[in-house]
Amino acid sequence: MAIEDVQTRPRDPQAAQEVIARLKERFGDKVQTGEAFRAQHAHTTTYLPAQLPDAVFFAESSEDVKTAVKLCAEHKVPVIPFGTGSSLEGQVNAPEGGICFDLSRMNRVLEVNAEDLDCRVEPGVTREDLNDYLRDTGLFFPIDPGANASLGGMAATRASGTNAVRYGTMKDVVLALTVVTADGEEITTGRRARKSSAGYDLTRLFVGAEGTLGIITSITLKLAGIPEKIAGGVSSFETLEDACNAVIMTIQMGIPVARIELLDALQVKACNAYSGLDFPETPLLLLEFHGSEEAVAMQSAQFAEIASECGGSDFVWTANAEERTKLWKARHSAYWAGRALAPELDGLSTDVCVPISRLADCVRETQEDVKREGILAPVVGHAGDGNFHLLVLFDKDNPEEIARVEAFTTRLAERAIAMGGTATGEHGVGQGKKRVVGQEIGKAVAAMRAIKQALDPDNIFNPGKIF
Amino acid sequence: MAIEDVQTRPRDPQAAQEVIARLKERFGDKVQTGEAFRAQHAHTTTYLPAQLPDAVFFAESSEDVKTAVKLCAEHKVPVIPFGTGSSLEGQVNAPEGGICFDLSRMNRVLEVNAEDLDCRVEPGVTREDLNDYLRDTGLFFPIDPGANASLGGMAATRASGTNAVRYGTMKDVVLALTVVTADGEEITTGRRARKSSAGYDLTRLFVGAEGTLGIITSITLKLAGIPEKIAGGVSSFETLEDACNAVIMTIQMGIPVARIELLDALQVKACNAYSGLDFPETPLLLLEFHGSEEAVAMQSAQFAEIASECGGSDFVWTANAEERTKLWKARHSAYWAGRALAPELDGLSTDVCVPISRLADCVRETQEDVKREGILAPVVGHAGDGNFHLLVLFDKDNPEEIARVEAFTTRLAERAIAMGGTATGEHGVGQGKKRVVGQEIGKAVAAMRAIKQALDPDNIFNPGKIF
Repeated sequence: MAIEDVQTRPRDPQAAQEVIARLKERFGDKVQTGEAFRAQHAHTTTYLPAQLPDAVFFAESSEDVKTAVKLCAEHKVPVIPFGTGSSLEGQVNAPEGGICFDLSRMNRVLEVNAEDLDCRVEPGVTREDLNDYLRDTGLFFPIDPGANASLGGMAATRASGTNAVRYGTMKDVVLALTVVTADGEEITTGRRARKSSAGYDLTRLFVGAEGTLGIITSITLKLAGIPEKIAGGVSSFETLEDACNAVIMTIQMGIPVARIELLDALQVKACNAYSGLDFPETPLLLLEFHGSEEAVAMQSAQFAEIASECGGSDFVWTANAEERTKLWKARHSAYWAGRALAPELDGLSTDVCVPISRLADCVRETQEDVKREGILAPVVGHAGDGNFHLLVLFDKDNPEEIARVEAFTTRLAERAIAMGGTATGEHGVGQGKKRVVGQEIGKAVAAMRAIKQALDPDNIFNPGKIF
Repeated sequence: MAIEDVQTRPRDPQAAQEVIARLKERFGDKVQTGEAFRAQHAHTTTYLPAQLPDAVFFAESSEDVKTAVKLCAEHKVPVIPFGTGSSLEGQVNAPEGGICFDLSRMNRVLEVNAEDLDCRVEPGVTREDLNDYLRDTGLFFPIDPGANASLGGMAATRASGTNAVRYGTMKDVVLALTVVTADGEEITTGRRARKSSAGYDLTRLFVGAEGTLGIITSITLKLAGIPEKIAGGVSSFETLEDACNAVIMTIQMGIPVARIELLDALQVKACNAYSGLDFPETPLLLLEFHGSEEAVAMQSAQFAEIASECGGSDFVWTANAEERTKLWKARHSAYWAGRALAPELDGLSTDVCVPISRLADCVRETQEDVKREGILAPVVGHAGDGNFHLLVLFDKDNPEEIARVEAFTTRLAERAIAMGGTATGEHGVGQGKKRVVGQEIGKAVAAMRAIKQALDPDNIFNPGKIF
């Protein structure tokens, strides 16, 4: 939890005020210091306490970003990039104060190269906006974290989502970035070509750096062709282990599922209530298949056999777009559905990811732990990647509960790491996971710190995150 | 060419001799200083002059590497990692002298996790050795540069090959590395889990760093399931442009070809002579399809239609394993077949890669340039990636010819870069491409240099490469 550690320690209030005055001079009301603005920009979907920036700067172009970063760098004032504020680990908090760079007005689609299946967008474009824009091209952008996040934020946290099992994560679909670095210059990290071996892979260094190395000002993305046919389906299981085993067999057999999502009984109950569904309140798999008419039918049949072998209910599938949309909208609302189980409590989303062969073990051992501790924590996950989340509901004003939850999340991380997995599959480290990733990163942290020091010697970019 | 620039400037001969003496004391005849050994280890498949190391150290374990790197670091003596010596841009040359770390004895497959489709190998395992080892598992490792390269070398140069259009490049299949860094410590850069967002992506920073940031001591790799059916085929075209257009349509239609390789008439002639084939000596596409019986048949039929639309000959396909093997062996020997066209000349392999929509333009303009200049240069390429090579045959003792070839390769790089492409799709920068990648990398070179300086402050790892 690290709640205790999250204290605001303004770095240099006088320097911050000096920068704000000069930004206002230059940018007028693109700069806001009112508490409402500041509070909105520290608010993240997280249990961590909000830490407000000293001001919010609404950048409208790369030039704006460059000018403002130069000013912040000159005064060593923190720069906190902000997209939509949907990150889960306190990535947009301002523990040392500073200037929040709100990039939501940089929301232009700069180019679409349909014939090359790529596009270039500004960082404030959200994934849903991009897909609306692409509607008539026959292409779509597949990466879909729960929230309608900005593409800059998604690149910064190396986000993934339900389609990752088929289409990869942000590290796989970002072809190139432009980034404003600590000297206020804009660099380009790659090309539109599908592959390159021209020097260090800066693209993938900035993807997942959580804004600690620079501000992403544009993103060149791979797109996918809209499949000829999309079919979705659901299957219920008696136990979570049975459901996991069906996932493991599906992946090991190489069935190219586009989505294979796991919900435990409690999460199904939450989604039923929140999204007006009526699934049996037992563990559930939601699937989607993409391909030709024949391919989709074949994959569905193959999965139905696996489900039946693992004790699942008859696999019900549909190519009806409306039903599918309802299903996946419910899936994307799982976080809020979970929170609604106990609106008075706070929610902490865990994010372990293990090699697929260990998924059932990891989920079973974790469920036993949940039971032993009497924790309220629905499970939902991108099971095809070996990645699952528990939304741990707890009272953050109760120190005993905090201690219990902290111990639980530590055990969970250690369990995943011991299985060859990671403490964080897609949410990033931010502030919240600093406590648990140390064991995983080990001595490599020295290399990460050296890179941070080299590219941002005054630690202006998103201080207090990752390290 | 940069031949002029490639001069040997020993860094500190006394320090090198001191290190050699101490290495010999510790490792006995794992350390060799005879000229034959040193010459073998500077010999690369390149037009660049050989630059011999002061000694060759045959490391047999991570511990060996750590001990020897510590010693070199202490005396600031260069460390040049060596796998099989098949790199094309002088990556294993020793322009400042130093110790060549030959990793070919680190050739153990450390683990295969068939149920997770991954394995971990030492850096000296070659791609063919790994596939032999995997033979009974139903899995294979798909990345296949022309040479039977070592997996450490392939990771270091971000290699790809004929299967990349379907299976990706080394950046996509490396899950994690262990690397010995400049302080002689071994770090682990990732986990076996399919995705992670735990800090900076060090895995992809070391992949493609060409040994300039550390020595790779093990590689965790994704594997692929051997497809139910593999079918190959060939189609001849009247012009190179027609062949390129067939490739463009194939990729744009999303046909999941496993391989789609382009040979121009001169390369076909060379392969016919070198590998005992009898293809018509006109531009040729070689294809391979992986999938179920039905999928392979459908893809083949779809491609046949495209080929016919683009004026190709009847698409001839076969599922006969022996015929396929002969075909792809010939393809993998294309470099040597090209060299055999004029054994008295040297060969320089270009490596541009452009967005697929520009492939035909780039090939056509380049062919016109070749004709104008009267250069002998067969074309072969991973056309599905937009990547193609010319093997420019020239006399490196003829300064006029060198100047003409230099000007030609500069124009080629500029042409590709102007089309959104790269000067090097898969061969890396090494020494040979330093001259042409500057324009492409631009201001980002400052970030690369800062990282190099941060992780290797005394510039011991593979000096004179990339920068």
